[in-house]
Amino acid sequence: MTQLEMARQGTMSAQMLAVAEREGLPPEAIRQGLAEGTIVVPANPGHAGLIPCGIGKGLSTKVNANVGTSADYGTLDTELAKVRVSLEYKADAVMDLSTGGDIAAIRRAILADCTLPIGTVPIYQAGIQALDRRGSMVEMTAADLFDVIEEHARDGVDFMTVHCGVTQRALARLRTQTRLTNVVSRGGAFLIGWMLHQGKENPLYEQYDRLLHLATRYDFTLSLGDGMRPGSLADATDACQIEELLTLGELVDRARVAGVQVMVEGPGHVPLDQVVANVQLEKRICKGAPFYVLGPLVADIGAGYDHITAAIGGAIAAAAGADFLCYVTPSEHLSLPDLNDVKEGIIGTRLAAHAADIVKGVKGAAEWDRKMSVARRNLDWEAQVGLSLDPARARAVHGRFATKGETCSMCGPYCAMALVEKYLGIAAPRCVV
Amino acid sequence: MTQLEMARQGTMSAQMLAVAEREGLPPEAIRQGLAEGTIVVPANPGHAGLIPCGIGKGLSTKVNANVGTSADYGTLDTELAKVRVSLEYKADAVMDLSTGGDIAAIRRAILADCTLPIGTVPIYQAGIQALDRRGSMVEMTAADLFDVIEEHARDGVDFMTVHCGVTQRALARLRTQTRLTNVVSRGGAFLIGWMLHQGKENPLYEQYDRLLHLATRYDFTLSLGDGMRPGSLADATDACQIEELLTLGELVDRARVAGVQVMVEGPGHVPLDQVVANVQLEKRICKGAPFYVLGPLVADIGAGYDHITAAIGGAIAAAAGADFLCYVTPSEHLSLPDLNDVKEGIIGTRLAAHAADIVKGVKGAAEWDRKMSVARRNLDWEAQVGLSLDPARARAVHGRFATKGETCSMCGPYCAMALVEKYLGIAAPRCVV
Repeated sequence: MTQLEMARQGTMSAQMLAVAEREGLPPEAIRQGLAEGTIVVPANPGHAGLIPCGIGKGLSTKVNANVGTSADYGTLDTELAKVRVSLEYKADAVMDLSTGGDIAAIRRAILADCTLPIGTVPIYQAGIQALDRRGSMVEMTAADLFDVIEEHARDGVDFMTVHCGVTQRALARLRTQTRLTNVVSRGGAFLIGWMLHQGKENPLYEQYDRLLHLATRYDFTLSLGDGMRPGSLADATDACQIEELLTLGELVDRARVAGVQVMVEGPGHVPLDQVVANVQLEKRICKGAPFYVLGPLVADIGAGYDHITAAIGGAIAAAAGADFLCYVTPSEHLSLPDLNDVKEGIIGTRLAAHAADIVKGVKGAAEWDRKMSVARRNLDWEAQVGLSLDPARARAVHGRFATKGETCSMCGPYCAMALVEKYLGIAAPRCVV
Repeated sequence: MTQLEMARQGTMSAQMLAVAEREGLPPEAIRQGLAEGTIVVPANPGHAGLIPCGIGKGLSTKVNANVGTSADYGTLDTELAKVRVSLEYKADAVMDLSTGGDIAAIRRAILADCTLPIGTVPIYQAGIQALDRRGSMVEMTAADLFDVIEEHARDGVDFMTVHCGVTQRALARLRTQTRLTNVVSRGGAFLIGWMLHQGKENPLYEQYDRLLHLATRYDFTLSLGDGMRPGSLADATDACQIEELLTLGELVDRARVAGVQVMVEGPGHVPLDQVVANVQLEKRICKGAPFYVLGPLVADIGAGYDHITAAIGGAIAAAAGADFLCYVTPSEHLSLPDLNDVKEGIIGTRLAAHAADIVKGVKGAAEWDRKMSVARRNLDWEAQVGLSLDPARARAVHGRFATKGETCSMCGPYCAMALVEKYLGIAAPRCVV
């Protein structure tokens, strides 16, 4: 039985209990959210050592870190190092997007090493294998694709991005739209190339029941990909994107009927004032399925600093109900991330998730800020360092310039905290002027 | 005559023309905004070499960079280097917040060197001089304070933060509130100490006409400081903060009557879902006076990464109508910024301002993103580098890992842009799979 089937028949699984414990919520709340489809717990029984993580309504906003090689760069070692950084800076999930080297070996090593839920995009491997074995991506067969999906499932992959909504209908919309940046999803682009060359429907849509069958058998979670997501602000929330979303809404229903956990992926590049509408649309059309957003990036011009562009959009999206934020690193649009980019991407996305969790009323979220503010008022630097997202950095920056007192080098003896405590007598002064 | 007086009587000043040219708007729109008080053009006639900058409704969102020494760190050279970085990364204004070394000499050197509008907080110098000359900050006289304000005005300072709303009434509210972090404004804290020790009203409030007289005489712009701004999310939008805002609303009226340009400063630490309300409150209570926000920081826990916390809040605030964003650097709450922090702070804040300008409909804002997206679609790396906020960084990141084609090392030969162009035939393929 899948987690969803267990939840529906009232069985409390070890995974549900673990999620409840971590969120500080009653196990019944997790079971009920799972049963209703507003929560997913991606947990492939084949992923040994997995610490289960819940994603969805009422839970803290989760953060995914992408790792993976490309044809140009990356080895098993570089990517395992990124997984370690992801664990250190507390990402909640990792996706292995490898498209270079021994893709299967990298995936297996990551699954063996990482206690976080692992996601993949099987079309990458299927397309690249077709290139190797059949001379071109577009010669891939449907069987090739489903074989790779089953291979990932057998390996223990917890959730898979499947671009089932890239249909001939969506493609027709793409042709009639005047998009600035047509398709920026690699998986979407693979499938569109295939569909155009073969003159056939997307097998992930046409043979969706075959996909559901595999998902039931191995209990992996579907992450319905947004192959038609906008790649520029000018393309956001257009008919092509929404056509795909409508299809994903239908596919959410069919997954739930089949007992398969499902979440939905969303944009992308979105102007700030359309972010909330995008979340509301997904929640309505996809009946409350957890929403996994890629950004959103609220500007196209942030090259080198897109972790910030994404943190702005991600915070607004999560506050409006998005459940899962895919990190964006400073190297987005320019190159694969290095280890420092992975760290910066995770921390920026965690800040966005946390800012949203405060206003979502997630248990413990505001309390963290409260503790930090108490430490700040008390000029307790050790506590501030301990409460920060990156203690080593906080310590280094605080200690960077000589300080003569217990304050910091920004205000020195003229620290407002210290002055007001002295004059208002609210607490013992730490610093005398 | 001040800029405001000229605008009211229909005179088009050179400053108004320069602002109109820069914004791509009709000069009459600038004159009218100035006359109505929804736009300010801080331009002290004593600031030789100033390139005027407009702040307010209908204009692009502006970004301020703070520089300045503390008792612990910084010299004239370090701070002039920060001014150069501010010019290089295109801040729109610079505030000199020096509290260490020869404060007057630093200010004069910055004014001589910098073509951007320069702001200061005269209470810092007044308080520190009182400490030196009278043995304690709280022994400062009202005359001492106004002498320093006049000195700054004579030096050519374009705008000054004056915490006129830190009144006995606000202090009474502070005593009855249970604030987590009482007062985090240095200027506010100086004045509160003084008011408590002297048992008197804040001279900047009590003798506001004296301040207006100086502002008229030298034509500097008042930036009404928010000494009661929240220093933690828990304190945001409380009675103490709003009490001060009500006072600032009255003082805006009086400044306008006197022919003095005025803007209003705002928080601070604010939960994401209260940011818009804070902007609407200021716009209503202060009758459309330009709003200059310090962040807002949408979490308290961002130490080491507060440029990101501030970018989230700043983008939301600016989209809701805030006109002027004070940058926050990664070293906020920890230490004075170094040169790299200044750069990161400016770029993060410019991204926030730009994301807002797109949805504000600021002339040329969306066009910049459009150009970047066209360059991205065309895999034109030189154009992308040229359009980025930090071309050197964009170039370095793109070139970091070897790429075999014209794509980037993230996707290599599997670039969606290249694939879709090939199969959809929308543009010449740059990359063959």
